Amino acid sequence: MAVLLATKPAAQAEWRDALLALDPALDIRLWPETGDPATIEAVVMWGTHDLADLRRYPGLRLVVSMGAGVDHLLRPPGMPPGVPVARLVDRMLTSGMTEWVLLNTLRFHRQDPAYRAQQAAAIWEELPAPATAARRIGILGLGELGTAAARALAGLGFPVSGWSRRAKTLDGIACHHGPEGFRAVLAGSDILVCLLPLTPETRGVLDAAAFAAMPRGSYLLNAARGGHVVQPDLLAALDSGHLAGAALDVTEPEPLPPEHPIWRHPGIVLTPHAASITIAASAAPQVVENLRRARAGEPLMNLVDFSAGY
Amino acid sequence: MAVLLATKPAAQAEWRDALLALDPALDIRLWPETGDPATIEAVVMWGTHDLADLRRYPGLRLVVSMGAGVDHLLRPPGMPPGVPVARLVDRMLTSGMTEWVLLNTLRFHRQDPAYRAQQAAAIWEELPAPATAARRIGILGLGELGTAAARALAGLGFPVSGWSRRAKTLDGIACHHGPEGFRAVLAGSDILVCLLPLTPETRGVLDAAAFAAMPRGSYLLNAARGGHVVQPDLLAALDSGHLAGAALDVTEPEPLPPEHPIWRHPGIVLTPHAASITIAASAAPQVVENLRRARAGEPLMNLVDFSAGY
Ligand SMILES: NC(=O)c1ccc[n+]([C@@H]2O[C@H](COP(=O)([O-])OP(=O)(O)OC[C@H]3O[C@@H](n4cnc5c(N)ncnc54)[C@H](OP(=O)(O)O)[C@@H]3O)[C@@H](O)[C@H]2O)c1
Ligand SMILES: NC(=O)c1ccc[n+]([C@@H]2O[C@H](COP(=O)([O-])OP(=O)(O)OC[C@H]3O[C@@H](n4cnc5c(N)ncnc54)[C@H](OP(=O)(O)O)[C@@H]3O)[C@@H](O)[C@H]2O)c1
Repeated sequence: MAVLLATKPAAQAEWRDALLALDPALDIRLWPETGDPATIEAVVMWGTHDLADLRRYPGLRLVVSMGAGVDHLLRPPGMPPGVPVARLVDRMLTSGMTEWVLLNTLRFHRQDPAYRAQQAAAIWEELPAPATAARRIGILGLGELGTAAARALAGLGFPVSGWSRRAKTLDGIACHHGPEGFRAVLAGSDILVCLLPLTPETRGVLDAAAFAAMPRGSYLLNAARGGHVVQPDLLAALDSGHLAGAALDVTEPEPLPPEHPIWRHPGIVLTPHAASITIAASAAPQVVENLRRARAGEPLMNLVDFSAGY
Repeated sequence: MAVLLATKPAAQAEWRDALLALDPALDIRLWPETGDPATIEAVVMWGTHDLADLRRYPGLRLVVSMGAGVDHLLRPPGMPPGVPVARLVDRMLTSGMTEWVLLNTLRFHRQDPAYRAQQAAAIWEELPAPATAARRIGILGLGELGTAAARALAGLGFPVSGWSRRAKTLDGIACHHGPEGFRAVLAGSDILVCLLPLTPETRGVLDAAAFAAMPRGSYLLNAARGGHVVQPDLLAALDSGHLAGAALDVTEPEPLPPEHPIWRHPGIVLTPHAASITIAASAAPQVVENLRRARAGEPLMNLVDFSAGY
């Protein structure tokens, strides 16, 4: 039985090497060279892979999505029924996201855009700065990535609140859930960080009403999915001065077309979906372990809950 | 007996309020309204205050410098002999510096200058990124500020080494000292952070030879004093491409003259000595406590060692 790697050629080679380093006995196939479809027991796939292809493998007992987000698996025709789907939960994926959130939180907290403008104009002038203890951070989504970011920010002395679907308790983080929780986090965030999965419930959650509920002069960070933000509403909130800035790692569409106003908006700092990168060598052990469990009929790790949508 | 505040008027008012909030019985004088010089027992002063003025107070038993660095106290005529001098060691001063170091380390680690250039050119392209575990950070100076920065960076997963005058042991940090230690830290730093005090030994320590000892493509952060860096050597190392970038919070002189090439160098990120700001309300308790100790003849906190120069 074989493992099919369905991603870009460079990543295929990286994943093959990482998996074989852990288990040299694995029979690895690189898409589209599948060999006999009946011999494929697992597919490790990137979000752009054609979902219809998965129905060609009658012996499939595990699909692994090569990232944290799984919104791309919900598009038609969806996953083959009855096949468990795992996503990646990975230390390096998490630490990369924590770094992105810290960089962009500190960028705005420390008035870096204003200091860059001062440098360009040769102005030597210290700017008044709110204390760390007075800069409230809100995190939308308290999963693997949101919890790690919340902890890192709280560790630096920021007051941190967060929002999840179900009630949650995290030491040193003010946890909220549900619609009232959403409004509480928005109203109490000088810097709001979106780390939600994209689901029917969370699409467009950051719209004009949400921005209006945030304090005047606050900032938005989005490293989740472009679809969480209603982009024209964000541009309007920045133009009116209600929001003071935004850092975006994700947009809709991606890549962002060259003529899109987000590129040139002076209040927006953009990175090209690079907040957090899957490193095969770091993520491979959980794939090998999940394959072992699937073969042994044991419960799998990091399963996607398709009823919740993430 | 009275406490004289010798700084700018706005800071004088802030310090007066902070000290009186802790001890309403304090007799506070705002320079130049000293009253009878014989009644001054303590001076809390900013670096720009005329040191000769301190010799006017025959009853002086404590001088507090309103910052972490004390190089300005070494200039002629120096401190009045026999009067103990304390500096500030303060949680907010330290956390402000840690934030500045994190912001600028992550800026270079995450290739932010290249991503800013890509955004300006509407280029959506993920850049190859060294792993955190492969990005070696070196900290020159393992005092209050250097140790806190080293710990924060090690906590994010960076390999961290450091350099101090005397041998030192810090959990999770490779500690070096002395001249061979200096070369070891330079050679092993992809990002080098200077948090030394400015003394006769450390002036000009970051010169052409030091930059040549650093790996090609490495970065420099300096938030200590402008005098640590031989500025023409830094500009040359950046121009040759040996150094990939620098973040400077301090220069020589300050303010930097508008025509100075540092302002416009594309490889330099400049902040106007704003890495870490003394907040009177946070720092006042140690001043009140040191005054109590001075009156009681007890050992003082945070004393400056003039033989070591810091
Ligand atoms: N930009 C990048 O490079 C990059 C990289 C990786 C991931 N991402 C994005 O980051 C997202 C989060 O990843 P993760 O690993 O942290 O996911 P996760 O572990 O599944 O956590 C998701 C969090 O969102 C909460 N949530 C889900 N639906 C919600 C709703 N309707 N209302 C309120 N809270 C809701 C969940 O609540 P419960 O705790 O109650 O379940 C959970 O706390 C991914 O889905 C992906 O889109 C981006
Ligand atoms: N930019 C800003 O806003 C800002 C704000 C505050 C401070 N600063 C600067 O930061 C500096 C450091 O502050 P700090 O509170 O961390 O000082 P500190 O606690 O006195 O620590 C100084 C460190 O430097 C080491 N050192 C001194 N001379 C040395 C030498 N010749 N060779 C090797 N190591 C040497 C000391 O070694 P030992 O451990 O052996 O004593 C110690 O580890 C200040 O002096 C000031 O100039 C800048």
